[in-house]
Formats: sequence, structure tokens, C-alpha cells
Amino acid sequence: VRAGVGPSGIVTLTTDFGTADGYAGAMKGVILARCPHARLVDLSHELAPGDLAGASHLLGRATPFFPAGTVHLAVVDPGVGTSRRGLALQAGEQLYVGPDNGIFSDVLGLGGTVQAFALENADLWRSALSPVFHGRDVFAPIAAHLASGGALPAVGPTLRAESLIRLHVPAPRRVSEGLRGRVAHVDRFGNLVTNLRHPDGVEAVVEVAGRALRLARTYGDVAPGELVAVVGSSGFVEIAVNGGSAAAHFSGSANLVVTLRPPRESA
Amino acid sequence: VRAGVGPSGIVTLTTDFGTADGYAGAMKGVILARCPHARLVDLSHELAPGDLAGASHLLGRATPFFPAGTVHLAVVDPGVGTSRRGLALQAGEQLYVGPDNGIFSDVLGLGGTVQAFALENADLWRSALSPVFHGRDVFAPIAAHLASGGALPAVGPTLRAESLIRLHVPAPRRVSEGLRGRVAHVDRFGNLVTNLRHPDGVEAVVEVAGRALRLARTYGDVAPGELVAVVGSSGFVEIAVNGGSAAAHFSGSANLVVTLRPPRESA
Amino acid sequence: VRAGVGPSGIVTLTTDFGTADGYAGAMKGVILARCPHARLVDLSHELAPGDLAGASHLLGRATPFFPAGTVHLAVVDPGVGTSRRGLALQAGEQLYVGPDNGIFSDVLGLGGTVQAFALENADLWRSALSPVFHGRDVFAPIAAHLASGGALPAVGPTLRAESLIRLHVPAPRRVSEGLRGRVAHVDRFGNLVTNLRHPDGVEAVVEVAGRALRLARTYGDVAPGELVAVVGSSGFVEIAVNGGSAAAHFSGSANLVVTLRPPRESA
Repeated sequence: VRAGVGPSGIVTLTTDFGTADGYAGAMKGVILARCPHARLVDLSHELAPGDLAGASHLLGRATPFFPAGTVHLAVVDPGVGTSRRGLALQAGEQLYVGPDNGIFSDVLGLGGTVQAFALENADLWRSALSPVFHGRDVFAPIAAHLASGGALPAVGPTLRAESLIRLHVPAPRRVSEGLRGRVAHVDRFGNLVTNLRHPDGVEAVVEVAGRALRLARTYGDVAPGELVAVVGSSGFVEIAVNGGSAAAHFSGSANLVVTLRPPRESA
Repeated sequence: VRAGVGPSGIVTLTTDFGTADGYAGAMKGVILARCPHARLVDLSHELAPGDLAGASHLLGRATPFFPAGTVHLAVVDPGVGTSRRGLALQAGEQLYVGPDNGIFSDVLGLGGTVQAFALENADLWRSALSPVFHGRDVFAPIAAHLASGGALPAVGPTLRAESLIRLHVPAPRRVSEGLRGRVAHVDRFGNLVTNLRHPDGVEAVVEVAGRALRLARTYGDVAPGELVAVVGSSGFVEIAVNGGSAAAHFSGSANLVVTLRPPRESA
Repeated sequence: VRAGVGPSGIVTLTTDFGTADGYAGAMKGVILARCPHARLVDLSHELAPGDLAGASHLLGRATPFFPAGTVHLAVVDPGVGTSRRGLALQAGEQLYVGPDNGIFSDVLGLGGTVQAFALENADLWRSALSPVFHGRDVFAPIAAHLASGGALPAVGPTLRAESLIRLHVPAPRRVSEGLRGRVAHVDRFGNLVTNLRHPDGVEAVVEVAGRALRLARTYGDVAPGELVAVVGSSGFVEIAVNGGSAAAHFSGSANLVVTLRPPRESA
């Protein structure tokens, strides 16, 4: 589409299918049958059923690191077969295929140029189309089309980027003490990833549930079992327990309010 | 074996090994050491221990979509090291390697031509043979042999397809109201997949546990949280909850009796 | 490094990241961006958080089977960003990259020649370095460097193999009855893998928790539901239940004491 973004031949897969039922496997078969040289890379099939926020988070964190022209196939699709649109996107140098239901919210927030197309050219789909499995019958064929070097505009009409569905995520807001946000994601380690962006190496204090934590560099800067706040690997403040789980420490950690403020002189 | 079915170079893996113990990893190493250009594709390592019905279901649903000549290595093998036979099969245009314990029942039911061979040519196996890990020492080397273009009959003597072990699955039966079957598989979403095949788009009513559900097109045709019956992606009737789990709705959903009948005029 | 050990182009991944958060996916992207022809093979992302013993066990069991020159990237890294060293190793014909925290203990115990290097050449790393994600910013780039044929000594200064951190694992000891060891690993099937090495086919009795089990050849040598002791696929005695879980049979099976002795004449 854009000069310099040809296909890498790599197709990543992100679903809430698990692997045991064969749904993810069927999609892999369809891609390889239509693009025999495709190189498949699993991102995850272990998203919780219907977890669009989790899928969006994963795609935003992992996909920007891939070679230009990689196709990212993302299928968390509770509205399959309804009037929800199918999408193919170029965002930055990456290509994306999946439903228009908010799954690409984080990717669209990354700030690269976006070109979006609605999947309407049924000639590119499997001819036997199940209304309950567009992952196999629509999205996988489109991923194979793009990985084979097929043109993005061939999939269907152009969409305005502003028309794409995005998950509603409350933004942090300025308060008298500093910046107030919330826990936006809880990871496998029980780390609480907030929506508060902060530059590495700038001193700050993180207030959460009555505790004030001076921002540390890494988990091991506090004793094992202690709470610690760090700037996570994507540039957002996170709250962790060294060698443990902050999610287990705070009950109901999702949506917990977190405030980031400068250190006090007296502190 | 048959004209037009050369190796695709792709080897898929289906096991109940999980990944954390290194069993699946060892099999991957053996395949790549013997067939360096093989392209490995995980179908699943998350089948429940010994779940032959689940493995058979997965293989039947996912493998037909792969390029002709793909090798599908399937190891759920509670009888490892006993007198149970090892198999290499061609079914339709796909190749299969694994134990003769029913794991290929769904594949054998797909209706393609079947050629079957017993694994008896020990020259093709690892010379250090563990009686408790034929996945690594017998099946993986045979998969590598086939993926390298090795001949199917080289693995051992021909078997009659009728001699292969198949899981006993009760077939649906005609009753006065219509066709009576059962829940044959519960998927990750809690969808109850029955053994009742039905053409898409033909009106019907599904009776289950005292409820009568008019067949819908997709999950989203009912309100969130409501029960819905649809024709699933493999052509079998399934019972679901839109945005929820039908398995959680019915306690003891496995083997639940389900009846498919025409709509009544008065309905 | 050594004659005959060029890169295989294969990079395996072993982490405790799970897949849903995108950490493993980001590492895959970084490797492929820096070594576009790399062939990624997942060993596991499902190790328990911080489970160095499990990661070490997996690497020791699975990696020796891969083609010479395969790069094994292993990231279970609770001390990320602290003073713990990063390592690149050649052990036998395999290459390894990860933290110096004991994760390579089993690999180092395999007995091959070891060359070890400290990761100090920051020119090979990502320039934007997060103190909490060396997997993405240090180890993945080094794995890509090695998979591309980059020299092992280019990563940093040589280390003596004896200086590498190893997990403390109590060795079996001679007692009057025979050899006394312990359960060292519990696998997905609930099999109890001991640290007692024993040749296949030599008669012996395994004593555990007041039971004396004559060593069998395979699980199916006893009736379903019965306890059985066999020589596992890596040469160590293991205790299993045919078709069941020995871990469920013994409460607190980790570290259970196990004694291996010759059969008694009268037995």
C-alpha cells in the first residue's frame, strides 16, 4: 500500500479460542492452504472469552515490534455474524485483520498513520461461509491474501479511521496533587498496569489505596513481598509485589484509582 | 503415495502434554533434527490428560483445512509401551501419525480415502527407545520421515481401515418428533456441540431440557444472556448462551439429550 | 564458535510470561525484526511465575534434541534489572540466552562442553532499554544476533562455567537398602519424577511412603488406577498412577523421599 511496506510473510494470531477445540487450528490450516509460504506466529489463544480490552492491550504492546508488513490476525468476536463490520487496517507499518468491535483500540492509539478498509469483497472469502466462524471463513482468508502480497484496497471500500469502533477508556485527569488514573490491565504476575504514562528516571510518588510508593527502577529494588511501583515496559506506571502478586494484595484491583505526584520536599 | 499428495513440509502437533514439562518441546527437537526444513504448527498441547474424544474432535475439525500432504502428529497415548499399535495414515489428502487408540476416529469419519500402515520399521525410530515416550522416540521420527518426503509404506505393513480402533459414539436416532442426539463436545465458550447435523438456513426447533429453541443464524440473534441454538461451524447443531456459557447454564451438560424437529404450524 | 556449530536459524522460547499480556509476543517481534529468517519454536510460556526449577527441568529435557546451533531463549527472570548477569552460552551443540539465575542448571548438568559469556555489549541490545523487560530489550536481540550467525564472544566477556549460578538440588545418597532420593518434578499427568537415575530393564524395587513397587516397563503394566514405578523418558525413576495422577494420590508429593533398592530374593 505505502511504499516500503510489502508483506513480511509473517502472520500472527490472537484469539480467545483456546487451542483444544480446533478453532485456532482450522484458521491456521486455511491460511497455509491459501498462502503456503506464510510463517505463523502465535501471539495468544488464551485471552478470556470475549475479552476485547485484553486483546486490544496485547496487540498494542506486542505488534509494533514485528517487521514491517506483518499481518496480525485478531479474532475476539462475540458479535460474529451480526451486522458488525470486518476490517483490514494498516497502522504504522503493520497490517491488521479482524472485527470492528474495539479490538484494535490500542493499536489505533499508537499514533501511526491508519488506512482502514471494510471486508466486503466476498470473492476473497471461503465460499462455504459459516455465520458463526468468520475467523476461519473471512478473516483467515483475508490474512492469507495480505501475506501473499495482495492489495489492501482489494478487500473492500475505504473507511474513515474516525468511524472505527474504539473501546471507551477513561483518560487520566489532572488533580491538585498530580495526575489521577486507574489500573487498566492486570497481568499474569498480578502486576497492576495503570494508564499513567511516566518517563523513566524521573522521580515521582504513586498513591494507591492509602499507600504512597516512591517510584523505583525495578521490582528487586524493594524486599521480597513488598509493594513497589515502577515504570513498566510500555512506559506506564505499574504497581507490583517483588516476587509476588499485587492483584492478590489488593482485592478488586481492576479499576483501582492511582495518583501520580511529585515527591514532597519533606518526604 | 497418491499422485498429487507430496509433503507440504508442514507438521502439526496435537498432544495432551501441556508445554511446561518439555515433552512437546522434545518432540519438536526430534522432528527438526531429522527434517530441518519442517515447519511446525501447534494445534494444541492443552487437551486434558488422556482425552481421546477431545483430540479426535480437534483433528476432525482442524486438519482438513491444511495444504495437501501436511503431516499431523497426534499423541494422546495412555497405552504407550503396551501392545497398542502405532499408525501412519493417509486420509483424504492429509497424513497422520499416532497411536491406534481411537484418536483418529473423527478423521476416519470424514469420508475420504484411507490408507493405513502399522509402525513396525524400527529403523526409522530413535535407536534409544523409551517405553513411556513413543511420541518422542517413534511418532516424531515417523512424522519427520513423512515431512521429508519419505514413503508412507516404508513405515510398516498395510492395515485394513476397518481394523483401526474407533471411539464408540452413539449415533442420533429417528424418533416420532424428529431426530434425537446428544451433546458430543463442550467447547471453551461453554457452547454445547451436538451430534445432530443440520443444513444452514433450514428452519427447525431444538428441544433440550424442557426448552424449545427455534434455530437461529448466530449467537447475537438473541439478547445477551439468552439461550440460542445455531448450526455450528462444522455443520452440527449447537446450543449456546449469547455472551455467556451454555455449559454453566445446564449442569451436567455433557451427554445431554437434544432433539431436533421441524417447527409446528401453530408455533 | 566451535567448528560445525553454525546457526540452525531456529530460536526456541521458554518463559513464565503466559501469552495473554503480549510480553512473549513482543519478544517474538523483536527477534523477527532483527533476524527475519528466524524460525520461532515455542517451548513453553506456561511455566509458573518465577519457576526457575521448572524452567531448568524443561530446558534440560527438551533442548538437547534440537539441531546443532539452535538458539534457546529462556526468560524466567524475577531479578530483572538488578545486578544479576545476563548470559549467552554454548553447551554441547546448543546455544542459550537468558539470565544468570540458575535457569540453565539442568543444561549445565548434561555434561557437554560449556562456553559462557556475560551480556555486556550494549550495542547489540535495543537502544530503548526497560529495566523491567530485559527479555524484550536484551535477551531477544542477543538471540537474534546468534540466530543470524553473530559470534558468541561478541556479546561480552568470557565467564568461567564454574561461576554460573546453579540451583541447589540435593543429590541422591547411598543408604544401606540402596539409593535414596526424592521427587524432583511433578509433571502435568501427576507423575512424580525422581532424581534417581536407573538403567532401563534392570530389576529394582521403589519404596515410597511405605509402599514397595517393583519397577515396571510402562504405565499399562498395572491395572488402571494402580500405582506404578517406571524408568521415565529421561532415565530417571518416576512414580505414576495408570490412567490417573500420582500427585493426587500422595498429598504433598513434591520432595517426597524415594528409595531405590534391588529386589529381595524372597520377594
